[in-house]
Amino acid sequence: MSDLDVTTLTDAVLARMSAQVTPRTRQLIGALVRHLHDFAREVELTEAEWFTAIDFLTRTGQNCTENRQEFILLSDILGLSSLVIALNHPVAAGSLASSVLGPFYLPDVPEVPLGGELASGVPGTPTRYTGQITDTAGQPLAGAVLDIWSSDGEGWYDVQKPGPLQTSARGRVRTGADGRYAFWSIKPADYPVPTDGPAGELLRAMDRDAMRPGHLHFIASAPGCASVTTQIFASDSPYLRSDAVFGVSESLVAVFEHHLPGVAPDGRRLEQAFCTVNFDIRLRPD
Amino acid sequence: MSDLDVTTLTDAVLARMSAQVTPRTRQLIGALVRHLHDFAREVELTEAEWFTAIDFLTRTGQNCTENRQEFILLSDILGLSSLVIALNHPVAAGSLASSVLGPFYLPDVPEVPLGGELASGVPGTPTRYTGQITDTAGQPLAGAVLDIWSSDGEGWYDVQKPGPLQTSARGRVRTGADGRYAFWSIKPADYPVPTDGPAGELLRAMDRDAMRPGHLHFIASAPGCASVTTQIFASDSPYLRSDAVFGVSESLVAVFEHHLPGVAPDGRRLEQAFCTVNFDIRLRPD
Repeated sequence: MSDLDVTTLTDAVLARMSAQVTPRTRQLIGALVRHLHDFAREVELTEAEWFTAIDFLTRTGQNCTENRQEFILLSDILGLSSLVIALNHPVAAGSLASSVLGPFYLPDVPEVPLGGELASGVPGTPTRYTGQITDTAGQPLAGAVLDIWSSDGEGWYDVQKPGPLQTSARGRVRTGADGRYAFWSIKPADYPVPTDGPAGELLRAMDRDAMRPGHLHFIASAPGCASVTTQIFASDSPYLRSDAVFGVSESLVAVFEHHLPGVAPDGRRLEQAFCTVNFDIRLRPD
Repeated sequence: MSDLDVTTLTDAVLARMSAQVTPRTRQLIGALVRHLHDFAREVELTEAEWFTAIDFLTRTGQNCTENRQEFILLSDILGLSSLVIALNHPVAAGSLASSVLGPFYLPDVPEVPLGGELASGVPGTPTRYTGQITDTAGQPLAGAVLDIWSSDGEGWYDVQKPGPLQTSARGRVRTGADGRYAFWSIKPADYPVPTDGPAGELLRAMDRDAMRPGHLHFIASAPGCASVTTQIFASDSPYLRSDAVFGVSESLVAVFEHHLPGVAPDGRRLEQAFCTVNFDIRLRPD
């Protein structure tokens, strides 16, 4: 029996996997063990640092609740979530880029009529969103669906608010025969990712900002096309180049035009300043 | 603004760390991000696999309690704990090798007189442990301390048993003027690491055995010498070459000699079969 040491231990761990293990599992666990061991060797990890990591991961798991996923946040701030999206949704020229789903998506929210209102009274600058959804050949996609959610104008999602859930700044709209969509909601605010847990500790250890540029999440889908999970970002945010979760692509930045109180393009009369945004979407065949 | 992609994202994350970050933190987080991203790129991690990992880590954290540390167990079965020990305690020729601390150490346990009994009535074959503690030059170390703990003869530690803690198979002994130690306890049983949590799932995914060879934990210390945390393993265990946590070194394997009921070397009369073990220990200067 020969002793395991810093050079032989990794192969010994890998050799323990039985021949019954499927090739993909073998590949995943093998790469995990190699990178984990290489990391420890490369930095000459001390026992105190190892224990700090054990404690950090433990508290990250224990910070997760039904309404909070601290490990996803950790993946987000380390750029892993955006990397996984980039690996699985390579940007095809001329079609909509993907971005991170984030922790606040809710399935099965109600549809509003074309041109309808999603805000449900939350604070924020009223904003009319319009655009056309086409395929990559430019053919309008009738019956395409946008499943939309965002923070309010103060940076809070409906699911973050105390008390029973009342959905707001959230809903679905469907394109008409010309592939055009329109809806009203608010202009989402810049906001910080939660910093009161382990992910916040790590941001402080890196001396990094927690802010995300204001953004509207949506999933775009249409029959015969690949669905895309993404976000659009307000072009006037100062955080476009420092998004805490690395989610911004140039093609996802939209101009929010500011208007004085008055009559909006759809005839709605507003007593307060409002915005309009036009964002066209191209979906590629499935 | 240029979009981040699978090749540029890693450097973008690293570049976010401010100049204020200490060199060691920069090294640790930098290596973590690089290995994490390299892992995802190498295996082309799918979104479903990413989410499986998020869920696995979350449940690992949530399995941790005051009496259970599932992340340490995960580190143990992946060989990381043994690697960190090997990195921080390189084996010096002729001195005691280190092994993993494990999750069951208790500080400040009482000392028993030289030759005394630690078992406190737990099931298991009575075993007399003896040996001499010297420095690496062979000089006997008087007043050296062994801080000892083990499972009982059925594989359970005192801290795993329900109800208020009653310490058993646990205690300290101190060497006499000749550097010799002696105590009675039981022969520790082979036992499986806990498999009812995420670490157990991973062992099953690797089609690996959960068994550890029977072992006695101790921390050996003496004035002027480096303390060593280690274990001795019973040479007749069938699991010496497949220890689930990769903790066995050849130099830590001890022969448990079996004896019929009768009189032990210290004059104690036993009505049942018993064992004797001699294990000499060399400590190097601090």
